Amino acid sequence: MDERIHDRKFVRTFFTTPTAVEEDDTAKMLRSASQLRGMQAPDVWVPDNEDATAPNMRDEGARNITEVVAEAGEDVPGEIHPRVVWHRDSPETRYRGFQHMLEIADPEKGAVEHIDGFVIPEVGGIDDWKKADEFITIVENEYGLKEGSLAMSVIIESGAAELAMEKLRGEMGKPTNNLERLFLLVDGEVDYTKDMRAITPTGELPSWDELRHNTSRAASAAGLIAIDGPYDDIRDVEGYHERMQNNQAKGQLGIWSLTPGQVVEANKNPLPPTEGYWLIDEDGREVELKEQDDIQVYNGSRIALEETGEGYILTIGSDQLELEDEDALQEELLGLLSYVPSLDDIVDSMEEFEAAKEAGQGAIAMTQSATVSIDGVETDISRDRMWDEATYQALQTPITYFQDIYESRPDQHDDLAELYSEDIVNRAMDVGN
Amino acid sequence: MDERIHDRKFVRTFFTTPTAVEEDDTAKMLRSASQLRGMQAPDVWVPDNEDATAPNMRDEGARNITEVVAEAGEDVPGEIHPRVVWHRDSPETRYRGFQHMLEIADPEKGAVEHIDGFVIPEVGGIDDWKKADEFITIVENEYGLKEGSLAMSVIIESGAAELAMEKLRGEMGKPTNNLERLFLLVDGEVDYTKDMRAITPTGELPSWDELRHNTSRAASAAGLIAIDGPYDDIRDVEGYHERMQNNQAKGQLGIWSLTPGQVVEANKNPLPPTEGYWLIDEDGREVELKEQDDIQVYNGSRIALEETGEGYILTIGSDQLELEDEDALQEELLGLLSYVPSLDDIVDSMEEFEAAKEAGQGAIAMTQSATVSIDGVETDISRDRMWDEATYQALQTPITYFQDIYESRPDQHDDLAELYSEDIVNRAMDVGN
Amino acid sequence: MDERIHDRKFVRTFFTTPTAVEEDDTAKMLRSASQLRGMQAPDVWVPDNEDATAPNMRDEGARNITEVVAEAGEDVPGEIHPRVVWHRDSPETRYRGFQHMLEIADPEKGAVEHIDGFVIPEVGGIDDWKKADEFITIVENEYGLKEGSLAMSVIIESGAAELAMEKLRGEMGKPTNNLERLFLLVDGEVDYTKDMRAITPTGELPSWDELRHNTSRAASAAGLIAIDGPYDDIRDVEGYHERMQNNQAKGQLGIWSLTPGQVVEANKNPLPPTEGYWLIDEDGREVELKEQDDIQVYNGSRIALEETGEGYILTIGSDQLELEDEDALQEELLGLLSYVPSLDDIVDSMEEFEAAKEAGQGAIAMTQSATVSIDGVETDISRDRMWDEATYQALQTPITYFQDIYESRPDQHDDLAELYSEDIVNRAMDVGN
Repeated sequence: MDERIHDRKFVRTFFTTPTAVEEDDTAKMLRSASQLRGMQAPDVWVPDNEDATAPNMRDEGARNITEVVAEAGEDVPGEIHPRVVWHRDSPETRYRGFQHMLEIADPEKGAVEHIDGFVIPEVGGIDDWKKADEFITIVENEYGLKEGSLAMSVIIESGAAELAMEKLRGEMGKPTNNLERLFLLVDGEVDYTKDMRAITPTGELPSWDELRHNTSRAASAAGLIAIDGPYDDIRDVEGYHERMQNNQAKGQLGIWSLTPGQVVEANKNPLPPTEGYWLIDEDGREVELKEQDDIQVYNGSRIALEETGEGYILTIGSDQLELEDEDALQEELLGLLSYVPSLDDIVDSMEEFEAAKEAGQGAIAMTQSATVSIDGVETDISRDRMWDEATYQALQTPITYFQDIYESRPDQHDDLAELYSEDIVNRAMDVGN
Repeated sequence: MDERIHDRKFVRTFFTTPTAVEEDDTAKMLRSASQLRGMQAPDVWVPDNEDATAPNMRDEGARNITEVVAEAGEDVPGEIHPRVVWHRDSPETRYRGFQHMLEIADPEKGAVEHIDGFVIPEVGGIDDWKKADEFITIVENEYGLKEGSLAMSVIIESGAAELAMEKLRGEMGKPTNNLERLFLLVDGEVDYTKDMRAITPTGELPSWDELRHNTSRAASAAGLIAIDGPYDDIRDVEGYHERMQNNQAKGQLGIWSLTPGQVVEANKNPLPPTEGYWLIDEDGREVELKEQDDIQVYNGSRIALEETGEGYILTIGSDQLELEDEDALQEELLGLLSYVPSLDDIVDSMEEFEAAKEAGQGAIAMTQSATVSIDGVETDISRDRMWDEATYQALQTPITYFQDIYESRPDQHDDLAELYSEDIVNRAMDVGN
Repeated sequence: MDERIHDRKFVRTFFTTPTAVEEDDTAKMLRSASQLRGMQAPDVWVPDNEDATAPNMRDEGARNITEVVAEAGEDVPGEIHPRVVWHRDSPETRYRGFQHMLEIADPEKGAVEHIDGFVIPEVGGIDDWKKADEFITIVENEYGLKEGSLAMSVIIESGAAELAMEKLRGEMGKPTNNLERLFLLVDGEVDYTKDMRAITPTGELPSWDELRHNTSRAASAAGLIAIDGPYDDIRDVEGYHERMQNNQAKGQLGIWSLTPGQVVEANKNPLPPTEGYWLIDEDGREVELKEQDDIQVYNGSRIALEETGEGYILTIGSDQLELEDEDALQEELLGLLSYVPSLDDIVDSMEEFEAAKEAGQGAIAMTQSATVSIDGVETDISRDRMWDEATYQALQTPITYFQDIYESRPDQHDDLAELYSEDIVNRAMDVGN
């Protein structure tokens, strides 16, 4: 069960598109999104027949999905998972969602062969998830599709759905349902905030750390993939990256995208950097050192370093340390510095460890060295990190992620080779196998 | 089940009063608390026959509750929920709690018609909750009261009770219990800290973020109301407000109050402010700008702004940004500023969106503008926020909260009209219906 | 069930040792660890036949455990719980772990009388825990040991195991298992990070706050003991202490140790300090005041205090407060200061409260006073804290912890007497009984 059961083991991007807009061609936005390629194209494309589309346009939206996916679906590089309407409290809405699925999956209309599954919003407790699963089973049966061949992804936007996630591992595999079709667990923080009745003074969304942890944990326990919800402020690229980094530390490796620009950011963000760099802990904030002629230079004003006759004075914020010699200084700086490895660095270290293991060694020391300059005082620092099997396996996550992306997205091969060089990409595809 | 089933949809204040004290009139504090009105009167008044009352005074305490509520209960503006003794590990304590409930609910003594329910402390796993529910059912049956007419609120002060909350949605509604009587889930952090065996150096309580999240989530999933525990440092009004704001972002919209002074603060805190104001992010801390002659003035020292011949230098903490023109400055300031809307602002925006929706528009841009002054440099900034149905509904929480308060607490109408003006109160009562 | 069912109610230290190394005497490290005494000896010693030992050495490792524990186990001051191999996804690994348990527990080999239980890593859902429990039951039955006499501790290193912890309270006590043998719940953050597929830029482990909360909560609900995982950076003593303090505020009172040096730190850290001290909140950071001639002196630069003709100017970071008189200053300083009581202080306060209770008082005020000096300006401050039964019981946790340590570890009596004085140790052993 801990094994992911779908083609994609990782999903970086979940991109929603309105299915019907008030234009001469109401399918205009769908058509345009279906043409995205390379870094602009998401891993999962979601023609959104729910919140992104006006309620009175949704029947037309379902027809538009069918038409556009039939025409253009074959060449869409990612998977296609339309979102239909659903609500735990409304049988009317659930029935309408069922009808839209029947419309979209009708094999005579030619779309279903390119449809990978459906996204069900506003689910409640586990019994509500089972109702959606049952409708999809009926759709499959009606159209002669294999049971379980259409994936089901859900939006977690109620406390009840958050609790239901804990039950998945025990419910999947029961003969009375096909919940093995589950694919993505997607947080929906706007409606979750409403359901939780949370209030913030500015109306900004709470960060919902526990929800994101619980979604990631459920994905781990049930072999699914956890995706964070939309980041509304589409101009705030820096904030979007911070959110993704925070998500990744929780094991939530994918995020919703609202625009092709956000898709590009979210496709690239989880990849290791092209160049490694050093961080220094500037009194509680991590800032990047700038490399100049192989020297790592600190340009900020919160850390100061001065060489005196008898040693060094290192000031961090309002704390002043008197250090008697260079050894003491190196020790202190080591505590402040950390290194962010590039894809190249990670591949090097893994290859080195693999060779050592081949030669019968269980653990080896990997050394990171740098010359650091603060206020013109240069210091050589060097750190040994012990690598054993556990370190190796823990660092394999970004490599496995990279390999999964590369294999699933041939349309991004050129972008990746341009970003990292052909050679590094090839070595990254070889390592760990 | 996601619908709240009780009269009150929101509870701001949960105010406990000792039931028997060592005075000539042992019911003195009860009598005095029963006379509170307006902002000093809590939404839920809890004659506390447990921790607030000495163990050897509790039989008298139960009699005092009966007497005072019979006399004065009819005019108490909020609901009345006495707390009785209970413990998951002690059948003796549970039986004593049962006897006190029999005493208080005896219809011949005239109190029960004003009693809305009972508060059960120190519950354990779900089976323990069922024992308390069963005793209340027996009390109801014994006295010819409708089954389920007495509400049951619980204090969450053990890991076992925290876990039990996850099961409520599945247990409520079973024919073998009357757990639909559940009303408030109240965190009790003092005893929870003891049960979790947590230690802090100063003896201060941990903040228990996960507990509060889980309580709020359970309330959401089971149609109940989440209340935070007591804030011990009753002189620290600012800290009490910070805690409430933190709670609200978790969906926990009510809090325990230990004094009439705390009741006033907790009754007012969740209401939107009477005047909107701007916040600026001062290197990680949000501080309020002061309005002077329609200009929003920053008076702190962590942000500095200087106009040079070629543009602007904006300093935030130790970061210095060189900005080439006013557009760049506006863009940067927009990222630092946020607006806290007043009740008036919220009602305006909702009315505007309702009118747009009536006219067939699904989304409209709402503009917030201000002139901001930093170090004497004035800049006009303006931000568009897209409002759609989801934004509208998310911002409805404070309005629904306000409406529920207004309807349930006629004794606070004058206070509210004085705070906001009659006109705004009336418009707030109309919007969204 | 809320009662802990094992001899030890608290475990400070969980120390792992490789069972077989590539040396002439492959049991060398085991032999050396078995000789540790006093503060260097852990509460729980874990001969580690899993990750710390190379896979091809583990059969020999099992034999080494048997041999060394038979020889030296009687004099080991703490409990002995070997870790065997196990994996939720591999029947081969589980069978090997079973065979190692059969080897180690064979009474003819003389080790089992000193073995307190086994540590099972890499468990999954509750059914996987039951498989391990069943193997231990078979081992007990095979060798004529009492059912349930061998404890079982687990490493929580998967989302599935994190969820399984919620079920313990309901599963323990069923006639079909012996899960009452459960003892420690130990977080294993390295493999948990891998299982959750979390990524951080530097490869540093996430802090996993929710996991630690959930482990502590499960321990509380099921009568077990929660232990945090290894802290890899063994040179970073300060970081290790910060982690322990953070754990303790979550109710996780023990931690893994990788070296005898870490054992010493982790054995001492949870004990109250020998001398009380004051903390001041320096604009968000707590720093310790230095006592000089009975005056508490602040030497930092973030807080400044100046006496003017009309009162005082108190500057905290960039906030400047004008205070009209000494009362206002005292009030403001009280809000910034907190006191960390010594063991002596805690015992004093508890004795005082016990005497007051004896005399019929339910609550008394405890006063803390100090003279504080900032920038040469001296101020007398004094704070009353109300102590009632709840305060008393909450502060009993460190004392009960101390008493449990003292009773279980006679080999540390001298160290404790040297640290605190014989007199205080004796009074601490008496109080609260």
